[in-house]
Amino acid sequence: MKQLMKITFILATFFSSHAFAAGDIEAGKAKAATCVACHGSAGISTQDMWPNLAGQKAGYLAIALKAYKDGTRKNAIMSGMATSLSDDDIINLAAYYSSL
Amino acid sequence: MKQLMKITFILATFFSSHAFAAGDIEAGKAKAATCVACHGSAGISTQDMWPNLAGQKAGYLAIALKAYKDGTRKNAIMSGMATSLSDDDIINLAAYYSSL
Repeated sequence: MKQLMKITFILATFFSSHAFAAGDIEAGKAKAATCVACHGSAGISTQDMWPNLAGQKAGYLAIALKAYKDGTRKNAIMSGMATSLSDDDIINLAAYYSSL
Repeated sequence: MKQLMKITFILATFFSSHAFAAGDIEAGKAKAATCVACHGSAGISTQDMWPNLAGQKAGYLAIALKAYKDGTRKNAIMSGMATSLSDDDIINLAAYYSSL
């Protein structure tokens, strides 16, 4: 039982520090310079076909960007945008847009 | 020139009444009964990995649901949810969530 609790604690620590890392909002804001043309300067998109990002869940935003990057989600514009993003960029962008 | 304006008017009318049909917010709300478990009763999702839908652009929501339905966008949960939706359901759900 003690061993099980220890494993649970280690796993919880791992996931809270990695999978759900908080991200750097300021770094995300700097990286968002190329996003504003479509998603707006405050995360409210400029066309009905493009999603608002302001206030969106950070976890979902990170999942979406990773899916565009690895090709499991495809979009003519976003696939190109996401390929150049590092894992840190993705976490930071997600933190920035969810903070708006 | 008059002919060209006429064609433009017809096309504009077609697109405004079809591709960007407004949707029935009340019908969308009724259809959203199965969405609330994940996306919340007010369109704010219950987990970080799932997107908020409240206030999202209707056009984007409709595109996303259609992509889940036709399989161009894949997700274990959403692919199953979207298959049973009619085109009207999709437009109505998009109208409802964008209205929140």
